[in-house]
Amino acid sequence: MAQKITLKKIAQDLQVSISTVSKALRDSHEISLETREKIKQYAKKYNYKPNNIALSLKNQKTKKIGIIIPEIVHHFFATVISGIEKVANEKGYQVIICLSGESFAKEVVNMDMLANGSIDGFIMSLSKETMEKQDFHHLREVLNQGMPIVMFDRVVEGIACDKIIIDDAAASYSAADFLMRKGRKNLAIISTVDYVNVGRLRTQGFKDAVIGRGLDFKESSVLKIEDAENCATEIENFLKKDSYDGIVAVNELFAVTASKALQNLGKTIPDDVAIIAFTDGMLSKYASPTLTTIGQKGEDMGGLAAAKLIERLESKQDIDESYETVIVKTSLIERESTP
Amino acid sequence: MAQKITLKKIAQDLQVSISTVSKALRDSHEISLETREKIKQYAKKYNYKPNNIALSLKNQKTKKIGIIIPEIVHHFFATVISGIEKVANEKGYQVIICLSGESFAKEVVNMDMLANGSIDGFIMSLSKETMEKQDFHHLREVLNQGMPIVMFDRVVEGIACDKIIIDDAAASYSAADFLMRKGRKNLAIISTVDYVNVGRLRTQGFKDAVIGRGLDFKESSVLKIEDAENCATEIENFLKKDSYDGIVAVNELFAVTASKALQNLGKTIPDDVAIIAFTDGMLSKYASPTLTTIGQKGEDMGGLAAAKLIERLESKQDIDESYETVIVKTSLIERESTP
Repeated sequence: MAQKITLKKIAQDLQVSISTVSKALRDSHEISLETREKIKQYAKKYNYKPNNIALSLKNQKTKKIGIIIPEIVHHFFATVISGIEKVANEKGYQVIICLSGESFAKEVVNMDMLANGSIDGFIMSLSKETMEKQDFHHLREVLNQGMPIVMFDRVVEGIACDKIIIDDAAASYSAADFLMRKGRKNLAIISTVDYVNVGRLRTQGFKDAVIGRGLDFKESSVLKIEDAENCATEIENFLKKDSYDGIVAVNELFAVTASKALQNLGKTIPDDVAIIAFTDGMLSKYASPTLTTIGQKGEDMGGLAAAKLIERLESKQDIDESYETVIVKTSLIERESTP
Repeated sequence: MAQKITLKKIAQDLQVSISTVSKALRDSHEISLETREKIKQYAKKYNYKPNNIALSLKNQKTKKIGIIIPEIVHHFFATVISGIEKVANEKGYQVIICLSGESFAKEVVNMDMLANGSIDGFIMSLSKETMEKQDFHHLREVLNQGMPIVMFDRVVEGIACDKIIIDDAAASYSAADFLMRKGRKNLAIISTVDYVNVGRLRTQGFKDAVIGRGLDFKESSVLKIEDAENCATEIENFLKKDSYDGIVAVNELFAVTASKALQNLGKTIPDDVAIIAFTDGMLSKYASPTLTTIGQKGEDMGGLAAAKLIERLESKQDIDESYETVIVKTSLIERESTP
């Protein structure tokens, strides 16, 4: 028998995007009739079978949960997985993890692979590229066929699923406000690009806090990092441009990088500059000085996501019921980087 | 249709171990005939299908690779996965990750799940419990049915598969020797329990280096950590008992924990005590002082493992050919924790 054909292979062979293939096979009107026909014929010729999700769902439960996350080097995602595993295993479910590597195409391909009978439902956090493209057809298709999704952290509006988030704007507001209560007056935020919801919301919360205290908010006090892996020079240049006395960073990597850069510039932390980071991971505990953080409760978020998904999988009711967004409370953990 | 029964469910229902069920279904003579019959009948009744690996292999390739690793909070495993993903994706393979959580039963269950037609081959690092039990029947069964495995880091002898390792003993030897060349005379090693091969080999290399320099080797200079998550008190008590001037730690978590403990005891690093850690991760770069490390080249190891597995999957020859153990060269990265 011939090798099973994949979405990716069809896309390569016909020189179209994976998204186009995926949409064409689902008969989306976004794709021209001609292209749809061409793709469908090709898929048929090579025995590609879309739309067998509903079938497999009706036939049997796999008792497996699929997780799709952007990456695992980030401590936050590792703690979320740990929370998911714990609750899922207790309830007799196994967990399969796939990484999107921040790529939209990989997210679509992984989702397609797992949805074809391997698992009962998804827990996911979107790739940066997916959020940039604002293309969520792969989520909608899975949902349309009756397979539930729970999104966490990087979520989007308008998708009919449960969501587990922290109140990013409020947490960032309180972080900035904490610094101002300690007397800091010239704050900056090191964030991500705006299409990542957490970056946008945390920047908004920061801005609201600064304005709320009657201080001047300058757009130049916001650094939006696109490429986290090579952020060191960008952060150093940003910090050279102004004499900030307080920094909020949307993750601990940005925070320790800023801390190193400031120390290299001859600043003392927290005397000259105070720092607060999102994510209470290993780096925050072992950096020097240790970092004051906003604990995101990754394990709690993972546990809640798993419980929610399993509840929905095992519910006897119709799945068209209303969806819930659970907001997990954050906590401020004070360490040496703030006075 | 009834819910598909799992190995775990059969084990629970019949009140035997997962390993017993797995062996009985494969007709192992380690299990009494009576028990085997009972388990096989039960499995048949609930339509459990073992041994369909060979069948699925003959029928079609999935172009998927399964990874089973103990955990992902450890930076080393994250870098290995990154290396696997890179090479696998280039060659058109998708990657599925399952975590054993250091549990033998979970490793067996995950392997059974993935081997049943979901993937073409495995890349894995064994759980601590598997190494303690020395029970490798699940690996042998998968191999017997023609599905290849590549093991990395935590490997065992006597399993017919390719292995990707570092020369743990030699790397540890050179780490200890480096400290002695810097004039340190009273060394200690913070290691893992002996049934984890890397702990045993690194301890051996350390011992050989100390004896090689004509110094006294004391058994009391070896700390074997069982529970990495709660190692802080154990490490502090160990360091209080003697005035070591050089420490080798088998991972960066043990090293930063030792560094913090020593600083709390009023010692200066590296003047009073020098420290070298295995794993060149984030902690080593951001700890204070930064840590001198033995770079394990996780990404290289992952890439080699994926290349090896895919080569074997796509080879037209019989799979009974000889197996290879690739030793990846480590490097010493000097930072502030050594003079």
